[in-house]
Formats: sequence, C-alpha cells, structure tokens
Amino acid sequence: MSADGLPMVVPAQDLPARVRIHEVGARDGLQNEKMTVPTEVKAEFIRRLAGAGLTTIEATSFVHPKWVPQLADAEQLFPLLGDLDVELPVLVPNQRGLDRALALGARRIAVFASATESFAKANLNRTVDESLAVFDPVVRQAKDAGGHVRGYVSMCFGDPWEGAVPLHQVARVCKALLDMGCDELSLGDTIGVATPGHVLELLSLLNEEGVPTNVIGVHFHDTYGQALANTYAALEHGVTTIDASAGGLGGCPYAKSATGNLATEDLVWMLQGLGIDTGVDLGRLVATSVWMAAHLGRPSPSRTVRALSHKEQ
Amino acid sequence: MSADGLPMVVPAQDLPARVRIHEVGARDGLQNEKMTVPTEVKAEFIRRLAGAGLTTIEATSFVHPKWVPQLADAEQLFPLLGDLDVELPVLVPNQRGLDRALALGARRIAVFASATESFAKANLNRTVDESLAVFDPVVRQAKDAGGHVRGYVSMCFGDPWEGAVPLHQVARVCKALLDMGCDELSLGDTIGVATPGHVLELLSLLNEEGVPTNVIGVHFHDTYGQALANTYAALEHGVTTIDASAGGLGGCPYAKSATGNLATEDLVWMLQGLGIDTGVDLGRLVATSVWMAAHLGRPSPSRTVRALSHKEQ
Repeated sequence: MSADGLPMVVPAQDLPARVRIHEVGARDGLQNEKMTVPTEVKAEFIRRLAGAGLTTIEATSFVHPKWVPQLADAEQLFPLLGDLDVELPVLVPNQRGLDRALALGARRIAVFASATESFAKANLNRTVDESLAVFDPVVRQAKDAGGHVRGYVSMCFGDPWEGAVPLHQVARVCKALLDMGCDELSLGDTIGVATPGHVLELLSLLNEEGVPTNVIGVHFHDTYGQALANTYAALEHGVTTIDASAGGLGGCPYAKSATGNLATEDLVWMLQGLGIDTGVDLGRLVATSVWMAAHLGRPSPSRTVRALSHKEQ
Repeated sequence: MSADGLPMVVPAQDLPARVRIHEVGARDGLQNEKMTVPTEVKAEFIRRLAGAGLTTIEATSFVHPKWVPQLADAEQLFPLLGDLDVELPVLVPNQRGLDRALALGARRIAVFASATESFAKANLNRTVDESLAVFDPVVRQAKDAGGHVRGYVSMCFGDPWEGAVPLHQVARVCKALLDMGCDELSLGDTIGVATPGHVLELLSLLNEEGVPTNVIGVHFHDTYGQALANTYAALEHGVTTIDASAGGLGGCPYAKSATGNLATEDLVWMLQGLGIDTGVDLGRLVATSVWMAAHLGRPSPSRTVRALSHKEQ
C-alpha cells in the first residue's frame, strides 16, 4: 500500500494496458433496491460516478414501470443527464422501450437475453428463441438509428433451476445477438457460481466459434466471492470490458442467493495495483458509494469501500 | 452450479492438481474475537473442521496469556485433540512457548516474523533482527525434537505505518527463517492490500533468491476483496499451500483496516470449481462455520457461507 491509500502498482505480464469499466450501479444496482430512490438522487449519483472518471454508466431501463418500479422514472431521469460527456447506455426490453429511448435521444442501447430457458421464462416470460425474435428488430432499428448495442447474456455459468449451463447454449445466444448487429456482449454470471477455469473455457469456445475477445464483456457476481478471481482470469484471456457496480449495489431479484454485483471499487483496486489504466479516481468513487449508501440506509457491501471509508474516519 | 450446490468443475491449464489448505480459523481467527470462546467449544470447532476434511488445522498459540487472552487455554485445549488424525500446528512466540508446546507433545510448530520494522515493533516489541535472533534457537530446538516448523512472515505486501514494503526486505526475512531450519513459509498480506502482479513478483524474486515454490505458503486477507484473485495468481505460479480461515474468522488487531482472512469456504468453492483436490467437504465446512458463527453471535463474513446457508433455509 502506498501512503495515499492506493495499492502498490506492480504490473503482471500479458494483461491489457487499459480496461473499460461498464458501470451498472445506477441501473442493475438500483433496480434491485426496494427503497424508491428519487430521480434527482439518481441523477446526482450518475453525475458523481462520471466525476469519479467512469466513462460508461448504464443509466436506466425503459422497461414497463410495472415490472421495475424503481426505474419507472426513465423518461424524467435521462434528460437530466444531457450535459454529461460520458456514454449512458439504457436497457430496453422490447420495441416499445426502444421507441421511448430513441425519442429521448438515447443511442447507446442494451438488450437483456438469457442463456437458459428457465431464466428466459422467469425474467422475460418467453422462450430463449422468442426473446431473441423480439430483440432482432429492436437491435436492427437501434443500429439503423446510429446506435451502439450491447447484448447481455444472463445465466452463462449456472442457472438456479437448471444447474449447469452447456457452453454451446451460451455460444448460440451470443452468436444470435451478434448476428442481429450487437456491437458487444456481456457474459453474465447471474448467480455468481463461476470459477476461473469455467470462465476461460467459455471465452475459448466463443473465440473458436468466431466471437472475438474484443466484443466480449464480463459481468461477474460475488455471491460466492469469486468475481475478482474470475475477472483476473478474463483479463489474462484479453478481455477489456468489465461490468461492475459502484459500492457493490444490486444482485438479481429472481435468484435468491445472488447477492451482489462485483463492486467497482474492489475491481479498481485490483486494476490499479496491476497498473491497468481505468481513468477512475478511487477516492471519489468510494465517496460516491458512501454517499449513495447513506441514501439507501445501509452500508456498502464492497470491501474496498469499507476499508477506505473506515480509514478516513 | 451443479444440482448439489457445488460449482461446476472446469479445470484451468497448468494449475496444481492438489492444494493443502492450512486452516487458521481456530488460532488466527479466534485470537481476534473479543468474546472468550470456551475451551470445549474450540475443541469441538477443531474436531468439526477435521471432520470436514481439513488436514492441517492450526490449533492455538503458546503465547503469554496476557497478550492474547483468547488463547490462554492452550495447555487445556491441546490435550483434548490427541485423537485427531490431522496436523495441529501451534504458534510459539519464544523459547518459553516452545517449551510449553513440546511438553504437551506438539511437534508441528509455527513462529511469527515480520517483514517490516514497524510491525515487528508493534506486534513483537523487537526489531526484525532481534525477533529473528529469538526465533533461531526456537526453530533449531523444534527441529532437533523432530518437529516441522512453519515461519510466518507478516506484512509482506504493505504495512499500515510504512506503506510499500521492499521485496528484498521480505526475501531477507524468508531466507533467514529457512536458514534456521524452517520447513515452510507463509507469506502474509496482513493488511490485504496486495494485487496479483505484486504476488507474482514476490514469488519470482523468492525463486531467484533460491527459495523454491514448494516451501512457500500464501496467507491473503480480504480487506480490499483481493484474496481470491491473489490466490489464483499464486496457484498459477505453482503454490500449493494456502492459508484460509473457516467462515472468514479473524483479521489483525494491530491493523485497523485489516478486516478478515480469506474464508476457507470461498477458497474451497474456487478450488473445487478448478478441479483441484483439497479433500474438503464444503457442506460440512459451511455447517461448521454456521455453528461457530452462532457461538460468536454474528454471521460469517464468508460469501460462500452466506450463499449456501441461505440456500438450505
């Protein structure tokens, strides 16, 4: 540890020089919070995340308000962020969601697919193929509008109903999303069960099936404490897009034991220690998560947030 | 995840086939607990850890009772464990501690050195060289008695007072311990600040200085959430001895922000997923940590314990 509360920088061989963090706290994190967060607090949260140096901040979801009440204010929130010089992806579940997002000027779009039938049914109320059929015109239209589209693939490493998930099933969904025109993928370990060999095997299979590493992002959960070890393995494979949630906000409401996204601060600690550039000011990020945790009335589950905020007191 | 609540097994290339977990919960874990744990509960804890398949269980410390009141019952505890067919190392701080340990038949001994002057002063009230001079006859006598000796080296990756710790300083202490006759080392990241490149650099330097990987154990803390990523890097380097604490018990009383050993369960989840043999039954281990947490009156900080014990309810 250096005197300023940052890790000592010691690079490891053959890792990427830069990583883009796809910050999901404001969408994936908050959507799993029971307490309704006021629109202006969300805007301020995103503003502070941008101030801390995050350059891709998923802002909200244009899902039907009935499904995710926390994000029912997407129409009010998104216009408040117009002056920010960062990417602000929004999730859209279907054509109606895309129409709403495009009407507000959003051009960075995300769709949320499932690698398993059980989760597609539980989360989307459709089969995997039915959901892909819904996304197909959505992705094409977003691309036609000049947009950039991310395809989430959830339950890539395990499913609470089905157990193990065959890798070829994940690859099939990934390729379908790319065929529609998705610019990038996010491989989700929605219930947090993956270990590094599993991660590397999926990445290798995707490469063999023609999916290049540079379109692959990884989205790990810390349910079993594995997220950062999996991230390190993904870095060794060459992955440069990593999803994380400020303060470790969020989880998955449909998977009881899924208790937490990888905390952005824990990720940044590791990346800074490895000398990998992220552009993030860890102190400002921790302060933002402490501020948000106060709004939510409970401490951040991020170990780095706890260690560094404790240190300041 | 497989149907039985274990990770899917997907080996990664070039990792060890077997790992020995050096379980420290009963000593390093409990010594940092304020609530005095009755001797019979400690004995039962160790018995259950052995029942879960752990083969090296650090049992107690023959330190002066004034320093660590929690372990003042070493003389009463150790004889209760005589029937267990596992290794039961005990920590000894000095000649007096060794005499007490040997008198009870202990032959697996550990000494606790520091890589930094500040921590040597705070923890041992001696300089680094003075403490090594104290350990020298202790280690030699333990070896003469047919014992096996582990040398802990604390603050290998950072020190709360000094910040960064020069690697050659760590190497000097490691070599001194081996020169005395220590059979193995345990490299401690006492304040949890290390990242994987730092771990790999220290391991490489030690190899260059003539310390073979097979005498090196690693002891990571999860203060910043880095322990398992660091462990994965150490496995890639070939390390096969890993310290962990059942349920994540413990920390370091002299370093305010050091809030937790790597939880054995989080480690076992990763190792099982990687197909690395540990001999541990994860379900029985989780049950043991849940039982111990109930005695201590607070939930285990281990993410795997929380996920799996939640699942059972």
